This record gives sequence, structure tokens and C-alpha cells, in this order.
Amino acid sequence: MPIPIETAANIPLFKGLDQETLTTVAGLMSSRTYLSHDIVLRKGDSGDGLAFLLQGKLQVVDVTEDGREIGIHFISPGAYFGELSVIDGQPRSASVVSVKTSEVAFLPAAQAKALIFNRPLIAERFLIHFAQIVRASSRQRTLLSIPNAFQRVFAQLQQFVRDTNEGSQVIEGLPKQHEIAIMVNTSRETVSRALHTLMKMNIVEKKGAILIVHRPDQLKNAANVGLEELPQSNGTAKKVQKSEKAEPSEKAA
Amino acid sequence: MPIPIETAANIPLFKGLDQETLTTVAGLMSSRTYLSHDIVLRKGDSGDGLAFLLQGKLQVVDVTEDGREIGIHFISPGAYFGELSVIDGQPRSASVVSVKTSEVAFLPAAQAKALIFNRPLIAERFLIHFAQIVRASSRQRTLLSIPNAFQRVFAQLQQFVRDTNEGSQVIEGLPKQHEIAIMVNTSRETVSRALHTLMKMNIVEKKGAILIVHRPDQLKNAANVGLEELPQSNGTAKKVQKSEKAEPSEKAA
Repeated sequence: MPIPIETAANIPLFKGLDQETLTTVAGLMSSRTYLSHDIVLRKGDSGDGLAFLLQGKLQVVDVTEDGREIGIHFISPGAYFGELSVIDGQPRSASVVSVKTSEVAFLPAAQAKALIFNRPLIAERFLIHFAQIVRASSRQRTLLSIPNAFQRVFAQLQQFVRDTNEGSQVIEGLPKQHEIAIMVNTSRETVSRALHTLMKMNIVEKKGAILIVHRPDQLKNAANVGLEELPQSNGTAKKVQKSEKAEPSEKAA
Repeated sequence: MPIPIETAANIPLFKGLDQETLTTVAGLMSSRTYLSHDIVLRKGDSGDGLAFLLQGKLQVVDVTEDGREIGIHFISPGAYFGELSVIDGQPRSASVVSVKTSEVAFLPAAQAKALIFNRPLIAERFLIHFAQIVRASSRQRTLLSIPNAFQRVFAQLQQFVRDTNEGSQVIEGLPKQHEIAIMVNTSRETVSRALHTLMKMNIVEKKGAILIVHRPDQLKNAANVGLEELPQSNGTAKKVQKSEKAEPSEKAA
């Protein structure tokens, strides 16, 4: 069914559009409700519309030919998705599944393209959105090039760190360990060990759902050059990662 | 110095622009000559213009904090680059160096943005260009998630395969071994061993600068599940990769 004009007006991509355009766009859109685990878009399908998450939560799921999940990306209300196929006419590049009951609105591809290519405001938002994706992919490529799995976890954690108003540094909404594992190409066990090492050394501290980063410089150092344990009673320090065993999944050949 | 209108008219991004716009754009551009190894754009600098390679050859160079080069990407005449900073106003995401004597033309950021955001034709070309980059990054992310380095090399080679008019499959312009190594996060030695294994098994054959792919299905299989050697005289087959040692750079921790 079509969506109300007020709903369309609240979609960030449409902010600032005149009332007439909004009315037209809202009338062209149709919304659908998905239950948890429903498939919203399927990898390989033809892309017949630009999708907007009105409420709920979705996850982009990309799997390799042998069934391993790669990359973790969630979609929050207000965001649009499925834009690649709308723009280049190629099949969907990944699947999108519903994490909980969600409402999704679709704008048919032809109308979406007309809106994007003929409205400088929308074109600019789209291009900035793509620029962000390209920069994020590039950062993740850099991260994945780190040969040491422990350092990859530290580098990934570093990207989650945010400043609070009180001047401290925290990680809020830390993804689950298996999600971090997928992000950095390693096992959940390695993520668990890396987190525990950081906590044991008091570099980070878990307080409820928040991870407080007590020593941001040491987290950065851990990501860049590996982790030195604090000097022991005899004054020596050793590289923690050197004492870790190679994981089976990381063996070269 | 400004560039001739005919030069501007030959830039693919500008194809189809009216003569008046072309004249204006050409008058706003300035070109510069770079010698081999000159730096054209420097990572971290502010992005003050959209760049076009008029002639020569450039390489995008991205290095990690510890100095390792990651990703390999060349720029050919006619292509534009430096577009991320123009669009989002953030610093340059990578450096670009001249591989041989090259001529580069710059269009100031403000004028480039006006052209992109106000011309549906240019906006569409930009968006399709970004969609291609995002899809390519996604494919490379999938490839890098393969734990086995040999399989990553095979998967990368598979992406280079092209059909000829005669119905055979070939790889033309195969990147150098150290370049392939950078693309797939492994050592040059692993690339060399992987290539030699394919040649020994007659899956590929080197003829001058061209690699003929005699058994595309076996190359695909090698990428997906690893490489089975041809049955030996006693009828047994063994996994080639199992006999390979883990490389130092691949050890997990």
C-alpha cells in the first residue's frame, strides 16, 4: 500500500523536497511488513526498486560460494538500500534479511532514477553516501591486510571508539563476538581472546553494554604493532601475540 | 595551462555535453606534466580538484601505517580520479603517482561539483562509476575472506579471464607477481608457486604476454575448493595446498 506523505517527508533522503514532489513520490511508493528472518532482497535477483526501512531492523547478508558469511552490516530506520541495482541495472549484490518485524517501502526503479538524476539535492546525497561507502571499504581493506588476527581485532575495535561529552573514550553498541569475527576474517575464539587480553591489561573495561577505553593510545599501539604485556615483576615484556597459536583457518596453504 | 576544447571533448565523462558547456569547462581546467615517480595526489591532502589523466599512466598507491602497500590500481588515459574528496570534502584517501611521463588536467572542486550535481548526464555517469567501485570492492572483500592463500590467487586469476572471439579463454595483461600478491594479501612467492602449479597441471599455459586458460572449469574449482592434482599413476589424487607450508605472513598470531 502507498505510504503517507508525512512518512515520506521523514525519510532523510527526501528532506527538503517540495510538497508536490513529496506527494508524487509517496503515491508511487508501496510498503510491506516483514517478520523476523524474512528475506527482503535476495542476492542475484533483478533490482526492481529502491528500498527504504521505515521501522524495524535489517541485516545485509553476503555469503561466499562455500556458504561462509562475510561482512556484517545492519540497516537502521530511515536508511535506503538496494541502490546499486537501481543505478546500474545489475542484479542485487547481496541479500537483506529482517532481524525483527520491519516495515519497508519501495520506490520503483524508474521513478527512483528520475528522482536521483534530475534533482541535484538527491544526486548530491547519493554521491556523498557512495563516497562514504567507498572510504569505509578502503579502510576495511587496509584492516584486512594486517596479517596478525589479534591486531585486526584491535584495529576494528579502534574504529568503534567514540568520544563522550565528558572527554572519555568508549565503545557503545559493541557488535557480538561472532559479528566482529566476520568483520575481520577470523574466528570468534580469537575475538574473545583479544578482548579478554585487553580487559586483563585494563586497556578496556566492560561496564554493562559499554566498553570504556581507559588507554586509547595502548589500543592504537596494539592495533599497529601488536600488544606488549605490561612489564612483569622481573621487568621484562613480551609480545602477547607471539604466544598465541596460529588458527587453523589462517594457515596459508 | 588551460586545455583545448577538443581535449575536453574527448574525456569520456564529458561526452555529450553541449559545445558551450565544453568551452566553459575546458577554460576552467589546467593541465600539468608529471615525470615518472612524481606524486600527482598525496594521501591526506585536501582535495582541491577533480583530476583527469590525458595521457600517460598513473598508479593509485595506498600504504598501511607500517608502510605495506595495499591494493593495486592503475589509471589509464581518459579516466578521472580524486573524485571522493571533491564530493565529500574530506582529505585524499590515497596517493597517486606517475608511472611514466603523464599529463593530468584538473577541474577545480567547486566547478566540478556544479557540473556533477546539476547535469543529470554527469550525475548518472558518476553514480554508475561509484556503483562499479562498490561492487568491485565487495567482490574483492569476498576474495580476501578465503583463508587459503593459494585459492585467493586462483580466485584473483579467475577474475582476469576474458573470452576471445575464437571462443577460448585467456588472461591478457596479467599483472606482475608482486602486484597480484598485494591484491590478494599474500607473498610474491605464493603467487609464483600457484602460477607454476597451474602451468604444470596444464590448466593454464603462458604464450608470450598472454596466459591461455585451457581448463576454465578446473581454475574455477581450484578457486572454490582448492586444487586436486591430476590422478597419479597409482590412481590417487592429493590436495596440492595441503602440501604447502603456511607462510610467515599468514600466521594468525
